Amino acid sequence: MKIDLNCDMGESFGAYTLGMDEAILPSITSANIACGFHAGDPQVMSRTVKLAVEHGVAIGAHPGFPDLLGFGRRNMDCSDEEIEAYLIYQIGALQAFCTAHGTRLSHVKPHGALYNMAVSNASLIRSIARAMAGVDANLFMVTLAGGNGRHMAAIAKEEGIVTRFEAFPDRAYTAEGTLVSRRLPDAVIHDPEVAADRAVRMAVEGVVLAVDGTTVPLEVDTLCVHGDNPNGVAMAAAIRSRLETAGVAVEPMAHLPAR
Amino acid sequence: MKIDLNCDMGESFGAYTLGMDEAILPSITSANIACGFHAGDPQVMSRTVKLAVEHGVAIGAHPGFPDLLGFGRRNMDCSDEEIEAYLIYQIGALQAFCTAHGTRLSHVKPHGALYNMAVSNASLIRSIARAMAGVDANLFMVTLAGGNGRHMAAIAKEEGIVTRFEAFPDRAYTAEGTLVSRRLPDAVIHDPEVAADRAVRMAVEGVVLAVDGTTVPLEVDTLCVHGDNPNGVAMAAAIRSRLETAGVAVEPMAHLPAR
Amino acid sequence: MKIDLNCDMGESFGAYTLGMDEAILPSITSANIACGFHAGDPQVMSRTVKLAVEHGVAIGAHPGFPDLLGFGRRNMDCSDEEIEAYLIYQIGALQAFCTAHGTRLSHVKPHGALYNMAVSNASLIRSIARAMAGVDANLFMVTLAGGNGRHMAAIAKEEGIVTRFEAFPDRAYTAEGTLVSRRLPDAVIHDPEVAADRAVRMAVEGVVLAVDGTTVPLEVDTLCVHGDNPNGVAMAAAIRSRLETAGVAVEPMAHLPAR
Amino acid sequence: MKIDLNCDMGESFGAYTLGMDEAILPSITSANIACGFHAGDPQVMSRTVKLAVEHGVAIGAHPGFPDLLGFGRRNMDCSDEEIEAYLIYQIGALQAFCTAHGTRLSHVKPHGALYNMAVSNASLIRSIARAMAGVDANLFMVTLAGGNGRHMAAIAKEEGIVTRFEAFPDRAYTAEGTLVSRRLPDAVIHDPEVAADRAVRMAVEGVVLAVDGTTVPLEVDTLCVHGDNPNGVAMAAAIRSRLETAGVAVEPMAHLPAR
Repeated sequence: MKIDLNCDMGESFGAYTLGMDEAILPSITSANIACGFHAGDPQVMSRTVKLAVEHGVAIGAHPGFPDLLGFGRRNMDCSDEEIEAYLIYQIGALQAFCTAHGTRLSHVKPHGALYNMAVSNASLIRSIARAMAGVDANLFMVTLAGGNGRHMAAIAKEEGIVTRFEAFPDRAYTAEGTLVSRRLPDAVIHDPEVAADRAVRMAVEGVVLAVDGTTVPLEVDTLCVHGDNPNGVAMAAAIRSRLETAGVAVEPMAHLPAR
Repeated sequence: MKIDLNCDMGESFGAYTLGMDEAILPSITSANIACGFHAGDPQVMSRTVKLAVEHGVAIGAHPGFPDLLGFGRRNMDCSDEEIEAYLIYQIGALQAFCTAHGTRLSHVKPHGALYNMAVSNASLIRSIARAMAGVDANLFMVTLAGGNGRHMAAIAKEEGIVTRFEAFPDRAYTAEGTLVSRRLPDAVIHDPEVAADRAVRMAVEGVVLAVDGTTVPLEVDTLCVHGDNPNGVAMAAAIRSRLETAGVAVEPMAHLPAR
Repeated sequence: MKIDLNCDMGESFGAYTLGMDEAILPSITSANIACGFHAGDPQVMSRTVKLAVEHGVAIGAHPGFPDLLGFGRRNMDCSDEEIEAYLIYQIGALQAFCTAHGTRLSHVKPHGALYNMAVSNASLIRSIARAMAGVDANLFMVTLAGGNGRHMAAIAKEEGIVTRFEAFPDRAYTAEGTLVSRRLPDAVIHDPEVAADRAVRMAVEGVVLAVDGTTVPLEVDTLCVHGDNPNGVAMAAAIRSRLETAGVAVEPMAHLPAR
Repeated sequence: MKIDLNCDMGESFGAYTLGMDEAILPSITSANIACGFHAGDPQVMSRTVKLAVEHGVAIGAHPGFPDLLGFGRRNMDCSDEEIEAYLIYQIGALQAFCTAHGTRLSHVKPHGALYNMAVSNASLIRSIARAMAGVDANLFMVTLAGGNGRHMAAIAKEEGIVTRFEAFPDRAYTAEGTLVSRRLPDAVIHDPEVAADRAVRMAVEGVVLAVDGTTVPLEVDTLCVHGDNPNGVAMAAAIRSRLETAGVAVEPMAHLPAR
């Protein structure tokens, strides 16, 4: 039994600091680093890559829409050609910092609105996969487990890209295996122990307890934790500890078996 | 006898078009492509790399200050760490488009104010060279022939980077082998035939006729031509034609002998 | 019989030039000037305001989404609070250039995707009107004639803002009085004389000939012409000339009677 | 005896929060609000203006270089025409938020590198004053007390702008009445009580104790305090309290007598 723990980071910009990157790194195995479009800047990228290397954490690109003002959280109506070019640009920029710090890029996880739009948009997934294949066909694409996940992974596969499925131990799930909308109460789980329980069931049994009390199967390769607040950091530590106690090997996504 | 002909391009941005890239490409052997900081955007970069590949022209990064509003032409007081990070970012982004279009990056030529500041700033040259070495130590750095050129090349060499010296057939030179300031009259030569004459002397004899009538030695690997106006395009064609008539092989800078 | 002729302008940015502002100004009575978000920059705004003043042309703000890369043409999912703040900011910036050049702002016409989204989005129209009322309740809002126009004007009126309806002499209309999509053939009229004919009917009879051959009533205060290409400039001159020949007074929208 | 207390604020941007604006407002009488070039965004500007109005604090524009990445702290080589246009734009944008929130703009204090460059650059001061006079000749310009202050104020006066001199209770001064460089040890005073002592002497006696032990006269209208950290907030409260105890009226700069 193996699973990856990933976290978004490198989201500071210029004089602005965001996230507790140093505190979260000991708990995770994969870092998704912002690439300067929705967050991050060249110096932040360099420092974050260096920090991840020092902690032996695998590095992924976390590309977003060109919307620093909206932190990449607003839907933007971009063409396929635009998306492909934006992804190549951002992946390439981060890849260069990886090279400069003696490591290689492992994966790509779209950020914010781009991630959410890609969950149900085949054309968007294809553009992202094409960009990745153009730069390095060994990069894993991280997308949402459950729901359309398998269909999206099949599209990525057509472009030569292998997908890793991501789940959220701190989010409520529907009986269909999709995330409960954040607009609903109880969409987010705040208790680290409850989240850790859910993480263990995801990793060991491949299931999640849905809001209606049913147990739903969920194919999961990597669990997303949060480093932007102290509770997230504590939760990540709890999740990692409980996974290891349960005999799960917490390892970067490249070590996971092929699906 | 061999020489390279280089031109800045890929300077369009979004809805804004700049430069006659398609018209100049048949005359040159190296294209310096903007990387999105002072000009260029991801789609423009992709199209320009594709176009250069189709014309068999070598591709270089043309990184600048993060100043789209000023087109990278305004001096900015950046730290060495900032410069190094800005260069890695821009080179990496362009490199990814090269990979996606099946080619490799050949060189790096700083743009505008960054180029001008680097001519006489050892610390800046070192930061640029370090960035290049971090990404790919085989990249050539293009800097100004004459003046401090040799000293700057020695600094780049300490960081593992080989320099190619650039000269301007359409610019007047002082007796010291430096460019006459653009603020002075007659700093720029507009007659394509006069410029072509100067290009041939630079390539064949390694000299330039200075404004005081003396003949000044100038080590030149690559001649810069301009594709941002019809006269520049005509001048580039005249230069190429006259070089070939004079028996000079016009080839990318990678084909030139080591200095 | 009176009508206004308006044109978007001031869309250059830094080293990038767009539009034939000087050529179109003699034909129009209202200039919609970009405010730096989707196009335009402070110097361009200053020069364009000065130019409009010299030609006795009324000045309006042409605010857009914060998307220079996409020229404000891409839908962005912004909140009402964001839209209101973006509009106040852009209107205020242009207003200051008007003050500095001794004139006052006359109107606000949303640009690109913001204009298109506002045509059918009551909440967006309200946010725009609120922003305008906050800065200067005497500003006219320019929105699309026909379709939802009257409903949108009623919403703006609730916020204290008077609307002026805009029509396009060079665009085909449906029998419902809405624009034929640009994706369809013949959506755009290229013949200046045909466009001038349509302009006269809009101004004199308050009707437009639809694609199905029916004559459709259309309340029109201002006609939009284009200064981004030579044909647009010629068309604008033809429209103005034909309007005057037909006895229509071409005047700024402030001179038009209240609806 | 009257003096103003001013503080920079509104420096948050999008998802990024900076400064303790709410905590500092009760201690000050003038707020310098960032205008979106080096920091701040339209929503932040709107909220900050609203907050200042609620606290009865006078509002000034805090314009900077177009360098969000460098927080406006890096020297940029801009032309006079550029500076004038950048200032009109930023002042106008903030002015519109003041209008929308029912207040008027009181003053303009350049930010960061623009402030530092303006201290000794007559041409820059003139461009800033011209921009201000173009928008509203009643705006006060805030510049550094001592050193070139009087000369700079005379230049601003030629353009019709009245200057208010600013001093820093938490900064060491030379015997010439200029600030000790931050690169030197002891350039910054961290003890709130010591800073409060210095503030009282500045306000009551018009002097500052220099690093060489001499007492130096300093014309001061407004004291700058800091709201970007808890110590700054505590220091501001101590300064205000001590000024009031000493019988100094702490009031906005518009209430101060003309110099």
